[in-house]
Amino acid sequence: MRVFSRFVEPTGLRAEFPVLERVAYLNAGTDGPLPARAVRAAIEELEREAADGRTMAHFERRSELEGELRVAYAAMLGCESADLALTTSTSEGLAQVIGGFELADGEEILTSDEEHPGLLGALAGARDLRGVAVREVPLPSIAEAVGPRTRLIACSHVGWASGLLAPAELGALDVPVVLDGAQGVGAVPVDVHALGCAAYAGAGQKWLCGPDGTGMLYVSPGLRERLAVSRRGFRNLGDADAGLDAGLKEDGRRFDAMSLSAEAVACALVAHEVLAEAGWSEVHARARALAAQLTGLLAERGREVAPRGDTTLVSFQSDDPPAERERLAEMGIAVRHIPQRPWLRASVGAWNDEDDLHRLLEALVA
Amino acid sequence: MRVFSRFVEPTGLRAEFPVLERVAYLNAGTDGPLPARAVRAAIEELEREAADGRTMAHFERRSELEGELRVAYAAMLGCESADLALTTSTSEGLAQVIGGFELADGEEILTSDEEHPGLLGALAGARDLRGVAVREVPLPSIAEAVGPRTRLIACSHVGWASGLLAPAELGALDVPVVLDGAQGVGAVPVDVHALGCAAYAGAGQKWLCGPDGTGMLYVSPGLRERLAVSRRGFRNLGDADAGLDAGLKEDGRRFDAMSLSAEAVACALVAHEVLAEAGWSEVHARARALAAQLTGLLAERGREVAPRGDTTLVSFQSDDPPAERERLAEMGIAVRHIPQRPWLRASVGAWNDEDDLHRLLEALVA
Repeated sequence: MRVFSRFVEPTGLRAEFPVLERVAYLNAGTDGPLPARAVRAAIEELEREAADGRTMAHFERRSELEGELRVAYAAMLGCESADLALTTSTSEGLAQVIGGFELADGEEILTSDEEHPGLLGALAGARDLRGVAVREVPLPSIAEAVGPRTRLIACSHVGWASGLLAPAELGALDVPVVLDGAQGVGAVPVDVHALGCAAYAGAGQKWLCGPDGTGMLYVSPGLRERLAVSRRGFRNLGDADAGLDAGLKEDGRRFDAMSLSAEAVACALVAHEVLAEAGWSEVHARARALAAQLTGLLAERGREVAPRGDTTLVSFQSDDPPAERERLAEMGIAVRHIPQRPWLRASVGAWNDEDDLHRLLEALVA
Repeated sequence: MRVFSRFVEPTGLRAEFPVLERVAYLNAGTDGPLPARAVRAAIEELEREAADGRTMAHFERRSELEGELRVAYAAMLGCESADLALTTSTSEGLAQVIGGFELADGEEILTSDEEHPGLLGALAGARDLRGVAVREVPLPSIAEAVGPRTRLIACSHVGWASGLLAPAELGALDVPVVLDGAQGVGAVPVDVHALGCAAYAGAGQKWLCGPDGTGMLYVSPGLRERLAVSRRGFRNLGDADAGLDAGLKEDGRRFDAMSLSAEAVACALVAHEVLAEAGWSEVHARARALAAQLTGLLAERGREVAPRGDTTLVSFQSDDPPAERERLAEMGIAVRHIPQRPWLRASVGAWNDEDDLHRLLEALVA
């Protein structure tokens, strides 16, 4: 019954994730599996805070953890850590860039027709509040769709509904590009310089297996100087003791989330470490190969797969996606349905194995 | 050696906080002591997420927890839960209100001369980006300082540096008032209707003893309709499946933080429960009475106390505040220093007892 494959599980990776003992967990595109080690790191911080209180030593500890996470996340994006902000979510980063970008009435933001509400919300804000036009085109042809009024392109790096990749041509355009990397970073290799993007927003809780409420935002130094920052918390200020003249931090920390907890940062950091120990090239290769394998197996069984790229998402046809998702959940198989489309979406990670795929395939025909 | 007092500790409250076994913890104005029970609640959520994964059932669970926290926090402010947003910090709430308020070049925001960087950052943003004047006056006389160009008043409910209360006259003005309640909610009774404020932002991690990264924002229904919302995450949207036409949630959830973790919300909820079980009127009365007692004792010992109100903060003269804070920390006494002022600040909570005050007093003369 076991599906044949040449892919060997990275030693020990699977055992890090308690949920995999029971569930065929194919849902990292929503939230990744949480490693037990990362949970322990969060618990240690919470217990330290309860025992020692939260005084200056606590904030120094939190600051150190944030510094480590910034370095780790920056490496995931191929950028300097000074250009990286720690956020609470992909959406928060996207909202900061789009909300702070200078746009005049009648100018246009170009986006794709398969964007997540987390990006669309910020775009609708720009449209409603600043009279900007938002034009939606298919992701694969977005680079050719740039028009004379296009001032900004904002779209997915990896489409959350289909798993399609943004076209490489985007990086060669003169118009600044903001990428929604919620399904990118951790799932596929990312290099913001090779992508040629001015900003890249990612999630901590999906393909990096961290806690809810974590994320990152890369903003290029050139764009950073151009973005208006209306919300400025203590951590974003240059000299917080200078009152109204505090100014902003020179580097990417001006975009940092206003408050992250030490327990969340420690949890995210150790989750990243678990994957880093398995090796990122191995993690990426294994996840994409398993996803490609699943794509083939679904097609063989007559389940049409949505057009996709070499990514970790596999969306496939379902006659009643919410009902089928629910039925699969009862069988211990975690996938999600895509609203407004006749699709279920399987998110395939390096922590998955062929048994997980097999359980899904068997359940689909049951 | 024990300082005499008529105040009896609320049964069992003190035992909830591990830090009090060792530390004279007078630092809730920065971050409150964390109850062991609240830490356990966070751990339970984290372990559930690791074991069961984070699928639809997880998000339903998180949503339930948020609903409970919204009700609990709304009761603390005396408002409808529909008018309350859950945020990551006081500053986040203040930034949303000030950033979304319609203000024209040449108009003015009135504030006090003892505001926290978390409010000043948002005010500096309005000044730098929208040409608004920001005028600072002493907190006790702020109501009389309203001028013809004043469109908004934004100031502390309880001053973080001194412990002064905003004047009651603010509530009778025609100009909308936004209160920074970081040192208010949980420390002193709050009723947003009695205060007559249009918005009130508070913290979860200070006087409510929750985790870092939690907070609340009340916005009156009248002001809500007038505020521009440029950042709109999934949770803020009316119909997230409607793409660019999703609109905003009708109620206060349009201002919710984009992502809170179940562990943070559960921790905040149980921390609130610990205090609620002791009784809020008892908690408020005891904290204020102990603070008043400390004020008297400091004065007796020749330490000048900063002008204050009937609040839980006691700031007092120090020749070298950072050095004295550090020396006290080494003796297991947690207070903070106030930048730019010759003051140390003791935050007195219902979890404190006279031994805590006594340890501080003895250490100050040591």
